[in-house]
Order: sequence, then C-alpha cells, then structure tokens
Amino acid sequence: MSDLPKRIDIHEEGPREGFQIEQGPISTADKVRFCEALAETGLHDVQCVSFVDARRVPGMADAVEVAQTIRQRPDVHYTGIALNLRGYERAVQTPLHITGSLQMSASNTFSIHNTNKNNEETLAEQRRQLEFFRDKGIEVDTAIVMTAFGCNFEGAIAPETVRDCVGSLLELADEFGIKLDRMRLADTVGWASPLSVQRVVGIVRDKWPDLKLGLHLHDTRGTGMANALMGLQMGIDSYDTACAGLGGCPFAGHKGAAGNICTEDLVFMAHEMGIETGVDLDALIECARMAEDIVGHQLPGKIMHGGSLSKFRHGAGA
Amino acid sequence: MSDLPKRIDIHEEGPREGFQIEQGPISTADKVRFCEALAETGLHDVQCVSFVDARRVPGMADAVEVAQTIRQRPDVHYTGIALNLRGYERAVQTPLHITGSLQMSASNTFSIHNTNKNNEETLAEQRRQLEFFRDKGIEVDTAIVMTAFGCNFEGAIAPETVRDCVGSLLELADEFGIKLDRMRLADTVGWASPLSVQRVVGIVRDKWPDLKLGLHLHDTRGTGMANALMGLQMGIDSYDTACAGLGGCPFAGHKGAAGNICTEDLVFMAHEMGIETGVDLDALIECARMAEDIVGHQLPGKIMHGGSLSKFRHGAGA
Repeated sequence: MSDLPKRIDIHEEGPREGFQIEQGPISTADKVRFCEALAETGLHDVQCVSFVDARRVPGMADAVEVAQTIRQRPDVHYTGIALNLRGYERAVQTPLHITGSLQMSASNTFSIHNTNKNNEETLAEQRRQLEFFRDKGIEVDTAIVMTAFGCNFEGAIAPETVRDCVGSLLELADEFGIKLDRMRLADTVGWASPLSVQRVVGIVRDKWPDLKLGLHLHDTRGTGMANALMGLQMGIDSYDTACAGLGGCPFAGHKGAAGNICTEDLVFMAHEMGIETGVDLDALIECARMAEDIVGHQLPGKIMHGGSLSKFRHGAGA
Repeated sequence: MSDLPKRIDIHEEGPREGFQIEQGPISTADKVRFCEALAETGLHDVQCVSFVDARRVPGMADAVEVAQTIRQRPDVHYTGIALNLRGYERAVQTPLHITGSLQMSASNTFSIHNTNKNNEETLAEQRRQLEFFRDKGIEVDTAIVMTAFGCNFEGAIAPETVRDCVGSLLELADEFGIKLDRMRLADTVGWASPLSVQRVVGIVRDKWPDLKLGLHLHDTRGTGMANALMGLQMGIDSYDTACAGLGGCPFAGHKGAAGNICTEDLVFMAHEMGIETGVDLDALIECARMAEDIVGHQLPGKIMHGGSLSKFRHGAGA
C-alpha cells in the first residue's frame, strides 16, 4: 500500500445531503447547530446548503437564513452549492464561501433527465456560468464528472468516456484562462466497484499525471468504503463524504438511493491506516449522533453505533 | 490487483447469526424457509443453527427441529455450530453436516470473558473435543483464531500473537494426525482495518505459505467491505458472511455490535471485479428481503435496498 497518501482532505456534505432529502421538517436552528458542530471537529470544508428552488426541494427553503445565521470559525470554509445562475446569484449574497465548479455527466442521458440539458447544452450553460464567475470575481477551483462509474439510463460507462469528459472540462476551463485545482470523479448513482475506480482513475491519470483527483462516492450497493480504499491505494487525497451517512439513505425510506460514504467511518479507516485527516474522530461521532437526533431516525453510519476504539485502545475496556 | 482470486467460497452464516440475536420470536417455519431459500441461490454452505443452551440463547431453542425440518439439496452443506461437547452431542444427531472446528482467541482475556476458560484451558477443552470427533468419526477441517485484529479487553493485538495462535492450533491438530484445510482469522469484535488485515495475513502467510486462509469479518465500524477488499487483494478466497447483514446489528437495537459483512454486498463486489462466487445475486437479494420481512425491521445490507445493476446493465433502466 505504498501509494497511500499521508493525509487526506475531507469535504463534508452531510448537512446539504441531509437537509435536502429528509422528509421531516428540520428547524433552521438545528441546521445551524449541526453545521457549527461539524466545524469544531477539525473539518475544513462544511457544505451547509444548496441554493435550489424551494418548490423542488422544500428542505432548502431556509438556505439563505441558515447561511446567514452560522457563526463562522475563521479556519473553516462553510460552503454551499448552486445548480444554475439563479442559485449562484442567491449564494453570493450570503456569507458562505462560494466557489465555482464546472460539471458534466459522463452519461448524456443522465444529464437530460437531471437538468433537461444534453452534454452540449450543459457546456453552453457552463460557459454562461463561467462568465458570471468572472464578472463576480468568483474563484473556480474544481470540476466534477458525474455518473463516472455507471448510469441507470446508459448502463456501464466506458473509462474512455470519462477521460473525454475530463478533457472537455479542462478545455472549457482553459478557454477562460482557468487552471483547475482538482477534478472530482463522482459515482452519482452508486455503480462503482474497486475495479472500476482503479480503471477510471488509471485512464485519467495516464493522460494527466499531474491533475489532482477527488472521489465523490455513494454507498448505494455496499462498496463505498472499499471504493474509497482503492482510491487511497491509488494515492487520491480528497473525498466528499457525509456525516452519519446522511443523504438518500434506505433507512430514511427513500428506496434505492443512498447517501455519500460516511465521514466518520472514512476518518476511522484512514486513521487506522496511518493516514491523517486533521479530524477529531470522537467529536465527529458526536456530530453523527446529533444528526440522528435531529432527523429522528437511525442513520446508516457504522462507527457512530459501534463506537470508536479510543477507550479500548490500551486494553482499558470492560 | 493481480493477486485477486478467480473464485471465492462464501460461508453463509446469516440464519445462525440472525436467529440467535433477534429479539422477536421467529417461527421455526420461517427459519426453515429462509435456510431453504438461501440454498437455492448457489451458496454451498448455509450455517443454519447453533446448538447452544436455550436458556442463554432462546432463539436457538428449536435448533434441532429446524435442522430436522429443512429439505436438503444434495449439493449444499447445511451446517450448525456447537461451542462445547454437549452441543456437539446434540448436533450430530441431526441431519446437518457437522464438522469439527478448532478455535482459540488471540486475546486471553476475551477467552475468559467468552467461555470462562483461559487459553491453556481452551486448548485442554479442544483436546477433549478432538477425542470426541475421533470417536464419532467427525471430520475436522478448519480452525479459527478469534479477536485476531483487536479486542475490547486487551486492546490492539500484535500480529505475532495471531501467528503464535495459528501455530498452537496447527500443533494441536497435528497431535491428532489432522491436517487442517484452512485457518480462519476472525475480526470478532470489529477492530480490523485494511492495514491490520494486510499485516496479520502477511505474517501468517510468511510462516505457512501453503496454509489456506479465510476471513470472518464484522462491519462494526464501517470497514468490513474494505477489509474484504484487502483480503481479496491478498488472494484470500474464503469468507464468512451473513445475508442482509443479519447479526448483532445496530438497527436491531443491540448497541455496539454489528453483524458479519453482508453476503449479497460481497457477492456484488466480487462479481463487479470479475471474481466468481457461483451465487445468483438477484436470488440472494430476494433472500435478504425475506430476512427483513421475517425479522420485521430494516437490516443493514445495502444492495438489497439499492437494487442490483442487472436491469440497468445495458442501459435498459428508466
């Protein structure tokens, strides 16, 4: 396991994932409390909200209020996402750390279902966004290829297709004089296996050996943590995760979906493998328990139920 | 991933794991129905019951009846376990495929808590069992080292300690002229990480390069499938698993415990990596759903909720 990174960066997406999909109304105060607690654990990026149409995602109706209420620590990026210009316009008026991200789906059909735009129209929309980012002085740092490991509409996705998407996004950034910091590969609908992670990462890295990569993994079919292990073994040092496994999880009654891989489970595995995260695992487990308390039902994270090893480590357990 | 096995054997322990820990009474007919369904999926080993004291484990009070009622397929081993001679005496009177197994815990303190015997006493008890197996003509095929990756009482377990346990078990078998088929390494209380799997497997294999190994993994802290991936990468071709993730899972209200890694999730991962299991994944997922129906609450398996990829594979999804 010689390619293991010494340290990984974790982008916490639990609040946004959870608040947008949970059925029960979650109070603004609870949302704020959860984001603030996460920021006390050593996490440097906490994705708090999504600036989407509240008619489509009622749980995000108070996104601006959440963003304005959070008491920010100076060493943490409190972020939010937007899917279109209208969303970005709302986002930049809040105190959140808003950066631009380019995105494209490796599955054209998924794009059409998800955003009503094919890949060509998506690139055109991205150009309009890039102009907006330039006008507003918004930094563009990453890009993401969605459905990079498979798609419910198009089936298996060839690694070559993902490579071509990465190429298109890099070209687009280049058009605007932007050098992307990192390319994230997303297993949007939970198709990835360790083998496909190896293949897709391999083909992208072969072409752009210096491009930093990140993984956005969902644990839809139980392979999430194994896929993350493959990422670690390939030296990938950036992961999008959700505290407590918040998100479209089966336990929330959203059949078929599943949240991102669970932040504290990944932190545990990393630490056990000698990989630093900068995160206080026990504090993060308390956040996961807070999340369960807030949503009012069991969440899929494991170590929040199994307990960390800290009290047993030196044989002090009973 | 050149050391990946071409095929793995899966030992299904879901019925025994589930029936012994679930709170609600499960009817004998349901137990039989579940075991029979599992045997239709291509699994070759189904561990149906445990012959334990019904006062300690009420869910196993009907173990003999379950064993006698199952309609057996000729190509499947329907097995049961016993923890002591009294249990074996009951077991061998049933139609189940009963084999002897040697066991030892890498943690002496765990042994004392679990069986009221220290490691020396455990070896003495094993000798009595070996005499019984010899008298009854019971085949002894495997041995298992428990708490091989850590223990809540003793903390971290040194790989050297596990190696010494393997040595003791091999010597004991040798005393009785038995050549063990396989040594199973068990993460009894959920401490393993991919790194400790690599270290423990490595040290055992260095000393006995021809000894076949098996992994018995629990998903207590979310690393179960990643640990299995490390096992696969090291060429290990035998795994103990539980359909639907049955067992001491947090969702069953047994705080802190968790079941074995989930059979159908492992089968999915294996197939996606080109590793054969001989199991019909979709049939197995139906078994997992049956298990959830029988126990009456959500179980932790993932793909049973996420759904297999078979209907989406060629882009036929909607």
